[in-house]
Amino acid sequence: MPIISERAELMPASPIRKLWPLAQAAKARGTKIYHLNIGQPDLPTPEVGLEALRHVDRKVLEYSPSDGYLSLRRKLVEYYDQYQIKLTPDDIIVTTGGSEAVLFAFMSCLNPGDEIIVPEPAYANYMAFAISAGATIRPVVSTIEQGFALPDVAEFEKLINPRTRGILICNPNNPTGYLYTRREMERIRDLVKKHDLFLFSDEVYREFIYTGSPYISACHLEGIEQHVVLIDSVSKRYSECGIRIGALITKNKQVHEAVMKFCQARLSPPLLGQIVAEASIEAPRSYSTEIYEEYIERRKCLIDGLNRIPGVYSPIPMGAFYTVARLPVEDSDDFCAWCLSDFEYEGETIMMAPAAGFYSEPGYGRNEVRIAYVLKKEDLQRALIILGKALEAYNNRK
Amino acid sequence: MPIISERAELMPASPIRKLWPLAQAAKARGTKIYHLNIGQPDLPTPEVGLEALRHVDRKVLEYSPSDGYLSLRRKLVEYYDQYQIKLTPDDIIVTTGGSEAVLFAFMSCLNPGDEIIVPEPAYANYMAFAISAGATIRPVVSTIEQGFALPDVAEFEKLINPRTRGILICNPNNPTGYLYTRREMERIRDLVKKHDLFLFSDEVYREFIYTGSPYISACHLEGIEQHVVLIDSVSKRYSECGIRIGALITKNKQVHEAVMKFCQARLSPPLLGQIVAEASIEAPRSYSTEIYEEYIERRKCLIDGLNRIPGVYSPIPMGAFYTVARLPVEDSDDFCAWCLSDFEYEGETIMMAPAAGFYSEPGYGRNEVRIAYVLKKEDLQRALIILGKALEAYNNRK
Repeated sequence: MPIISERAELMPASPIRKLWPLAQAAKARGTKIYHLNIGQPDLPTPEVGLEALRHVDRKVLEYSPSDGYLSLRRKLVEYYDQYQIKLTPDDIIVTTGGSEAVLFAFMSCLNPGDEIIVPEPAYANYMAFAISAGATIRPVVSTIEQGFALPDVAEFEKLINPRTRGILICNPNNPTGYLYTRREMERIRDLVKKHDLFLFSDEVYREFIYTGSPYISACHLEGIEQHVVLIDSVSKRYSECGIRIGALITKNKQVHEAVMKFCQARLSPPLLGQIVAEASIEAPRSYSTEIYEEYIERRKCLIDGLNRIPGVYSPIPMGAFYTVARLPVEDSDDFCAWCLSDFEYEGETIMMAPAAGFYSEPGYGRNEVRIAYVLKKEDLQRALIILGKALEAYNNRK
Repeated sequence: MPIISERAELMPASPIRKLWPLAQAAKARGTKIYHLNIGQPDLPTPEVGLEALRHVDRKVLEYSPSDGYLSLRRKLVEYYDQYQIKLTPDDIIVTTGGSEAVLFAFMSCLNPGDEIIVPEPAYANYMAFAISAGATIRPVVSTIEQGFALPDVAEFEKLINPRTRGILICNPNNPTGYLYTRREMERIRDLVKKHDLFLFSDEVYREFIYTGSPYISACHLEGIEQHVVLIDSVSKRYSECGIRIGALITKNKQVHEAVMKFCQARLSPPLLGQIVAEASIEAPRSYSTEIYEEYIERRKCLIDGLNRIPGVYSPIPMGAFYTVARLPVEDSDDFCAWCLSDFEYEGETIMMAPAAGFYSEPGYGRNEVRIAYVLKKEDLQRALIILGKALEAYNNRK
């Protein structure tokens, strides 16, 4: 019987994969679970997006262009213009979610054996896409003590060698909620320029910035226009993760052409998702305002609540809808599993993502968890009470 | 400025890529083009599929499971049962089109440097997905003289070496329309068994078989259940290529688990496409009957018409909606381009896919074209007249 590939062996399992069977068993026992583990916003998709779907007036649901509909790319140009990102439709390639944008960026820019530097903790699937392309992620570790600020330039330079081909950042950051400052972005720009690297910048959370700090896109950085590959997605901003519409943006014609070869091979991005995404861009301002204010409140509720639990510490995330918190436990993998398998408080428990899965080297994040605030405030409050009770019980168990 | 990857350099351009600018220029001159080059059926998507879309009653268009909705997988089990393919929902992974199924199959089963044997002419994008996985396609060439029958077993065995990991077939075949006989399928089974290979079988055209010959699926072959990876898609059978819903089917648990890692990395297949696909499976029998009868007529019209043009020869395709025809020209690349750039008949011309793009080694298919019959009969008849006139003019030009 033939065996599977080495890269399949290397592919990381999701940080919470082991927890799902425990969660299912807990549910089967009748325990209610507050899901602090997911990145799927609970907030509604814009009504204009759903309306567009109800009015699809086509006889044939046919292939769309490999780089996506021009009408959608034109709307995206207007959208980015609001953020002072100046593009033409030809700079934008519509992808099947941000996921495909990352995969095709790596496939197009990295050779097997090439390395990219990624500040960690980081979104676990970057690793999966790097493995798919045969490339290696070299982590620079940001720490909770420093509020997950960008590690020193020296930490990057220590890792740079002839196989280094790029730096990948996620800004605002999943899982930490950190927002890179102008100074940090300029340090990244200088590194990219000095060592002639690609800068892959995942900016899918730009709508969710809660401090007065400015959003500095990789596309704002001068002098590295040919080095930047922007990864984007409508999933988070319009709460439509299921439609699988993202974008890869580059002003580098060679990269554009290379990515297009992968796009042509898979024929086209999802037609129906493009229709919803295009309509969603027209959502009234009130849509984003309401969503934004909701997250502001949830963030305050969550972070205040976390820091009030004895032994728990969370920095204040500046963006996205996650935080990485430190817990008074030695092994958050074990604690998160225990919350599902051995604990309940008044018939309820919580599910969180152990942070070790967001670091590529073992030993990091052992006492950290990622918590998403995609639950309504009352549920977050309840989940915080349960977390407090769980920690108490866990640390007092025999 | 950083450079792109070697695999991006290797990626094949679409066989008709060079023709698009010529087609656009022709259109700009006011010339009407009959598109014999595409694989997008013109026939309608089932009304029940479109209806399902109009009635999507959700507030949030959220992620679906990485292996697709269980309800869709259950419906697919019933669908395959009609073809005596016995599955459980756990054997099925819903993918983003058949394209992703091929990519993930290769990613999961092939190491860089591994080889798969593919009868050619073959769908050009297999090559693209093989390159993405760092694998190599070794072609066995089937010929128009033999009606594109499976090459002799000896031709396969000549290519088998320690790096050979699988055989890929497309049945019924794109681009030739050939349907493998039971005897041929048994020869493939014996090869797979003898050399312990994977059998990747793309069977997206199973609805379109026009002779009395039975459809022998790779899943019907006894003794190689653990070797078969079936590639499928709803695109062609329900004329919904744009929704991007396919499937990867395997009874091999190890392969299933490996493929799931790639599926989890890209989070989920398109939600909306799954809703349409699930409803489309319930289309009334009259839907498939009408479509089927339409193709039967078109096929007759096209093949009779082709073989009536002096110097043109097409075998009778047994399935799918393509044929590969031999033309009285030396270089069909040049002829197809010329039809767009230098020819018109009463303000009209034709676009066809030069067949060289369906062979991975140079020199093959130079006087062949792939013609799709996804136009209505009157248009096909008109296109045939234009082809005849074009050949006459091309061969009489100075």
